[in-house]
Amino acid sequence: MQWYFVASLLTILTSSQGILTTLSQSNGGYKYDYATVPFLAEVFKLLVSSVLLWRECKRSPPPRMTTEWKSIRLFPIPSIIYLIHNNVQFATLTYVDTSTYQIMGNLKIVTTGILFRLFLRRKLSNLQWMAIVLLAIGTTTSQVRGCGEASCDSLFSAPIQGYMLGILSACLSALAGVYTEFLMKKNDDSLYWQNVQLYTFGAIFNMARLILDDYRSGFEKGPWWHRLFNGYSVTTWMVVLNLGSTGLLVSWLMKYADNIVKVYSTSMAMLLTMVLSVFLFNFKPTLQLFLGIVICMMSLHMYFAPPTMLVDLPLTVKSAPESHIDRRTNS
Amino acid sequence: MQWYFVASLLTILTSSQGILTTLSQSNGGYKYDYATVPFLAEVFKLLVSSVLLWRECKRSPPPRMTTEWKSIRLFPIPSIIYLIHNNVQFATLTYVDTSTYQIMGNLKIVTTGILFRLFLRRKLSNLQWMAIVLLAIGTTTSQVRGCGEASCDSLFSAPIQGYMLGILSACLSALAGVYTEFLMKKNDDSLYWQNVQLYTFGAIFNMARLILDDYRSGFEKGPWWHRLFNGYSVTTWMVVLNLGSTGLLVSWLMKYADNIVKVYSTSMAMLLTMVLSVFLFNFKPTLQLFLGIVICMMSLHMYFAPPTMLVDLPLTVKSAPESHIDRRTNS
Repeated sequence: MQWYFVASLLTILTSSQGILTTLSQSNGGYKYDYATVPFLAEVFKLLVSSVLLWRECKRSPPPRMTTEWKSIRLFPIPSIIYLIHNNVQFATLTYVDTSTYQIMGNLKIVTTGILFRLFLRRKLSNLQWMAIVLLAIGTTTSQVRGCGEASCDSLFSAPIQGYMLGILSACLSALAGVYTEFLMKKNDDSLYWQNVQLYTFGAIFNMARLILDDYRSGFEKGPWWHRLFNGYSVTTWMVVLNLGSTGLLVSWLMKYADNIVKVYSTSMAMLLTMVLSVFLFNFKPTLQLFLGIVICMMSLHMYFAPPTMLVDLPLTVKSAPESHIDRRTNS
Repeated sequence: MQWYFVASLLTILTSSQGILTTLSQSNGGYKYDYATVPFLAEVFKLLVSSVLLWRECKRSPPPRMTTEWKSIRLFPIPSIIYLIHNNVQFATLTYVDTSTYQIMGNLKIVTTGILFRLFLRRKLSNLQWMAIVLLAIGTTTSQVRGCGEASCDSLFSAPIQGYMLGILSACLSALAGVYTEFLMKKNDDSLYWQNVQLYTFGAIFNMARLILDDYRSGFEKGPWWHRLFNGYSVTTWMVVLNLGSTGLLVSWLMKYADNIVKVYSTSMAMLLTMVLSVFLFNFKPTLQLFLGIVICMMSLHMYFAPPTMLVDLPLTVKSAPESHIDRRTNS
């Protein structure tokens, strides 16, 4: 399985996620408790990974599995980072409006590049750095509020705390991704075994969140297991399966490709969602959406095309065009 | 004199041109006949070039000057192309509004790249093509109509003729530039001699235009030489000198650098004007202006930085980093 096939599938599924979530709403609201969706997605991922691990165990040689506590104790860390991230996100939204928050969200593309360089010690060429910044610029461009849209002037008018928290949020989001990549690549353990550990903690943390919600609301909507499938339609189940599947693909990419590939997949998915919305929900296409798409496509080409294709160089170098691709599939 | 020094000076002067023209207006209109400005600028350029040529003639060896009619007859061609361009521009504006016209004007960056490749047979790397498209995207991004601005929805709603004429206009503008570069580089003639020929025809064509204006208006404002210095302030004279100086710099760049350098200079000037307008005329800075500037800066780096700086390559290639720069200063 090639990484670009997985990345393309991730783009399509992530894009469907936005569309399905919108379709699962009725009259602009959810009939079901949205917080139950990520929990069920974690359970789905855990089940799939367990079955695949069990099948792998029956074969020979058996999969590599590190079962020391020293290793296992690292697997809740991504969940903990996401938990902190969710709270920072919540705090940020008390200072800035959702549109400013969305624009600032593009910062995580750049912070991922930086942490990828610092923590995973991966070298990026000058051109690849530019490609990463361009990707963030492209997604931001596509989100520029157009002529005639409602809320204006909000972007530069939030209090400084809002921007600081937005930057912190982008760093935490990047940190979670980079840490997961570190976990997946730190040894040759079976991907499914690593997934089982990751999703067990994921399910536990999501369940804890549901319980906390119950205590906060004073059980007025009943305990969480009563709300679990309440108001679920076929579309809601598709949202769950879709979210679970994207999680499994991200996990695969973290082990066999890297965070940058994931960032490209999800950014392209955002643009694809906007294009699909033009057709499905009668969104008005804007010039900035078109410009953003062209910018992101060029960024993609700049980052992934072999250098010999991009610049004219003496023939001696052209004999080794594989080195660039190898770096990202085998590492 | 290095080409990047001339290019920077051109950026500053072109940017001042916009500011000075705005400052030369009173109550939103011109007290003087604006059509006299380009004519006087041509005369200024002709005078400066004549003096410099005369000084060059006194030195030994004397400058190279091809005085055959076969060569001289090519020099009115840029003026003729500009004349056609002006009329196409006028026709375009009957179909599209000025804001759409301005957005379409960025196409000339791409058409210049194409004609530069086709007519002057200059090879551009894959990355340089991307840089040129990015420059056009960047200038367009900076011009995206923001939230709360007046005219909306105009960009995609013009009749097809408007877009066709806009493309024709971009091609003619590029053709004039590329043809001038061909003229300046076709032999080793003195730059000043080439300028004298170019500006003599330029002055003649501009004078013809003034005479035509007189006939069209039935001499109601008197013959053009009566209007020549009418209502001129110090600022108007600065506009004339500035326009003349930018012309001389462009001419220098056409001989010793190329059209792409000129396109970068004038695009950067447009952005600089917008930034200066924020301070001088209290223009509201927009997110799209900021994004556009970052895109154009990256495009600049992508186009002009030596390939070895942009991509990581085996050390053998790094020994010849000069080849890229040489190509553009000596050709």
